[in-house]
Amino acid sequence: MDRRSFNRRVLAGGAVAVTGMTSLSAVAPEAAGAKSPPRTAAAGGEVRRVTMYAEKLPDGQLGYGLERGKAAVPGPLIELNEGDTLHIDFENTTDTDVSLHVHGMDYEISNDGTRHTRSHVAPGKKRTYTWRTHAPGRRKDGTWRPGTAGYWHYHDHVVGTDHGTGGLRKGLYGAVIVRREGDVLPDKTFVVVFNDMTINNRPAHSGPDFEATVGDRVEFVSITHGEYYHTFHLHGHRWADNRTGLLTGPDDPSQILDDKITGPGDSFGFQVIAGEGVGAGAWMYHCHVQSHSDMGMVGLFLVRKPDGTIPDYEPHHPHAAGAEKGGHRGHG
Amino acid sequence: MDRRSFNRRVLAGGAVAVTGMTSLSAVAPEAAGAKSPPRTAAAGGEVRRVTMYAEKLPDGQLGYGLERGKAAVPGPLIELNEGDTLHIDFENTTDTDVSLHVHGMDYEISNDGTRHTRSHVAPGKKRTYTWRTHAPGRRKDGTWRPGTAGYWHYHDHVVGTDHGTGGLRKGLYGAVIVRREGDVLPDKTFVVVFNDMTINNRPAHSGPDFEATVGDRVEFVSITHGEYYHTFHLHGHRWADNRTGLLTGPDDPSQILDDKITGPGDSFGFQVIAGEGVGAGAWMYHCHVQSHSDMGMVGLFLVRKPDGTIPDYEPHHPHAAGAEKGGHRGHG
Amino acid sequence: MDRRSFNRRVLAGGAVAVTGMTSLSAVAPEAAGAKSPPRTAAAGGEVRRVTMYAEKLPDGQLGYGLERGKAAVPGPLIELNEGDTLHIDFENTTDTDVSLHVHGMDYEISNDGTRHTRSHVAPGKKRTYTWRTHAPGRRKDGTWRPGTAGYWHYHDHVVGTDHGTGGLRKGLYGAVIVRREGDVLPDKTFVVVFNDMTINNRPAHSGPDFEATVGDRVEFVSITHGEYYHTFHLHGHRWADNRTGLLTGPDDPSQILDDKITGPGDSFGFQVIAGEGVGAGAWMYHCHVQSHSDMGMVGLFLVRKPDGTIPDYEPHHPHAAGAEKGGHRGHG
Repeated sequence: MDRRSFNRRVLAGGAVAVTGMTSLSAVAPEAAGAKSPPRTAAAGGEVRRVTMYAEKLPDGQLGYGLERGKAAVPGPLIELNEGDTLHIDFENTTDTDVSLHVHGMDYEISNDGTRHTRSHVAPGKKRTYTWRTHAPGRRKDGTWRPGTAGYWHYHDHVVGTDHGTGGLRKGLYGAVIVRREGDVLPDKTFVVVFNDMTINNRPAHSGPDFEATVGDRVEFVSITHGEYYHTFHLHGHRWADNRTGLLTGPDDPSQILDDKITGPGDSFGFQVIAGEGVGAGAWMYHCHVQSHSDMGMVGLFLVRKPDGTIPDYEPHHPHAAGAEKGGHRGHG
Repeated sequence: MDRRSFNRRVLAGGAVAVTGMTSLSAVAPEAAGAKSPPRTAAAGGEVRRVTMYAEKLPDGQLGYGLERGKAAVPGPLIELNEGDTLHIDFENTTDTDVSLHVHGMDYEISNDGTRHTRSHVAPGKKRTYTWRTHAPGRRKDGTWRPGTAGYWHYHDHVVGTDHGTGGLRKGLYGAVIVRREGDVLPDKTFVVVFNDMTINNRPAHSGPDFEATVGDRVEFVSITHGEYYHTFHLHGHRWADNRTGLLTGPDDPSQILDDKITGPGDSFGFQVIAGEGVGAGAWMYHCHVQSHSDMGMVGLFLVRKPDGTIPDYEPHHPHAAGAEKGGHRGHG
Repeated sequence: MDRRSFNRRVLAGGAVAVTGMTSLSAVAPEAAGAKSPPRTAAAGGEVRRVTMYAEKLPDGQLGYGLERGKAAVPGPLIELNEGDTLHIDFENTTDTDVSLHVHGMDYEISNDGTRHTRSHVAPGKKRTYTWRTHAPGRRKDGTWRPGTAGYWHYHDHVVGTDHGTGGLRKGLYGAVIVRREGDVLPDKTFVVVFNDMTINNRPAHSGPDFEATVGDRVEFVSITHGEYYHTFHLHGHRWADNRTGLLTGPDDPSQILDDKITGPGDSFGFQVIAGEGVGAGAWMYHCHVQSHSDMGMVGLFLVRKPDGTIPDYEPHHPHAAGAEKGGHRGHG
């Protein structure tokens, strides 16, 4: 079991004894595959509680994790439904100040995770961060307030500099997905963080690769951190440039993309049906900035036939290293 | 009174004696605060006239202003309603050719502000630039013509190089907002120009900070100039990635953002309700490119409680320098 | 006749004897001009076949072409309607491996044009690439599948590096437009590729310039390749930030732009009515990154009055070099 699926397992239930929460996912265990009709997100409103640790990893990087000794890069994927509240009992096991700053959520300034608000955590100390979410609605003045649903992310904001440049460089980041009631749920979710010249802080030319079977509903979350702009490109699959990456209907005017410029702090996500209209294959995803792809910001989206094979693919290719089966829901 | 609010005052009425115009704003004086229902933009169709000066500032920078000796960086915020025409009697008081080039407006090529069209202004000379705007409508062939409404900007196009690189670097830029009839009007508007490695040509780590009270409807205008790409990030507040930054309704598919990549010449704007769902606080806004924020491309959105206090905020923090109360409408 | 209009002619009919296809365009020959009602794209469903050559150009660059000895940079503009299939009988006449990788289309992995799928072509060899397209539709599970319509592009993926960095630098790229039934057709289409610090691999400060007459419906396709981010800016004209660049109606919330950040692999397109609301003129288009425009990433959109004149324009200006009349439809 790789680190990410471990985290997903913990997030989905393994941490119950520790945290008292039942699950960070409202999704029942089911087999993967494009269903008719698709599973959709439930209404939110739950109050959940999880413990998160900032840790030094054996290789000198830093990571967030939901259990002691289990931190990883990226940190655990956190999934919420609009209306949910998440209390994060945070413990800093490293020897430097660390914080947890999140994008997109509602939180009081005391949960900002910044030094000027003194909302970071000293070495060996604990505190609780609380994130709230809300459904869209109409304000009293008649204007529309957006809901929290989106592909967001969290990261350190104090290691190295007052903007967390050192913490981000070493891996203190992760994805947050907030879903609206009725949003289509994926079979698998893959998180791709373009952090400086790496993907998910991995060595160049070592993926991560992601695995799926033709017909799976696969969700990608793209996050960018660090110094550089990047362009996220996926071969053979496309998405809509809107909130969910899925067209809302035939009148949705959104551009359809397979390549999107992003900069640090940006995030977006989308779902594709693996191999739809194109079939199985070792489909590249990469940063399309030429020097970045040449220097190894590339991985494979390995879409298998139902019999498990991948046409025109030599598994001993260097890209075959680091494959991930991703987060099948309901494991654990 | 700082330079910007001075300019707003002039723009809203103080320059009447000089220019003969009654106002560049169609908004009546009212107290700030989220109203029910909100004030909205009136129909356009007015012909307005203003005098603008290009001047050398005491610190060696260059600025645009609506009165002699009152130029500033950014230049005055110009607000129009779709259908309005603006005549700008322009005088170049500097010792170099200067021009006024605008994005988004309708103007004849003789008003382009470029050297190859000879539409710049020699030192000590005057000319009139005319900008027109229009409401959206259906063309005779059935297609839809977009209206002029948007968050636009103006800048020099001839100082230093034929693209105004020297003029932009020294501060010859400003924002233009064109509103559609019925567009929601803000209580305050703040202009943030990421110009090379500065915000509004200020020294690093010196803001500008922006002040509001919980519940104020605050408008941000983001403009980028110079060499670098940036990402505009605001803590604790979000907007829709569309024309106004406000959702048009529950079916608007736009992504909700709190971080957006921009490059030179780009501009966008949005409104937030200060502290909505998060309360008062010293909310950072900054470029999220790590070296840029570390080098000082950061300011504070100071959202006060009705009693004037800001929780978890130490006003002697370096960021407290340079606070602006912004443009309360109807002053002057 | 310049190289691009030659290619358009070939694409529209001149290559029939060679390829057996009747046309890559479903549009009948008509005079240019904004019509009422506009011509619109037909339903797709045709199977077309074309021969394409990768060639070394006399100046050492590389290009794609539809006839031997006629390769150009950018390569031929390919236009399809949703539902069409295109078979490309590809011949590599160069002395290095070359491929054809496309964005946005449906193709089996064996048509990916990448080295790890062995879908490139050795020197002197041939193969057929097949691209398919589809209309939007509703999946069995009720979700909406986007159609192929869009402003896409093709390029080499193997010259120099496994990402085609050498092939792209030397000119192995071109545009693909896929239209939806009912999409408004332009009178002319111009392709602008920001490739490293060049436009369409031309020398700095040498255009290309594009010609039209007031009232023409002109389509621009913007593609970015190479190392750098850019911002595409057009003077005096604007577009909607959506699939077609045209508003779908009065409720389309898309932002209206005249400046848009792009990175390598990105593409978008839009239509404008030449001179609408602004009249004839030598309207600049350029990258708005200051050093990029200063170093020559600039051209002119030469919009003539019906009598052929352009106000405030001196045709001996350096920008006057390299004018293109663009692709009037139905020529050949």
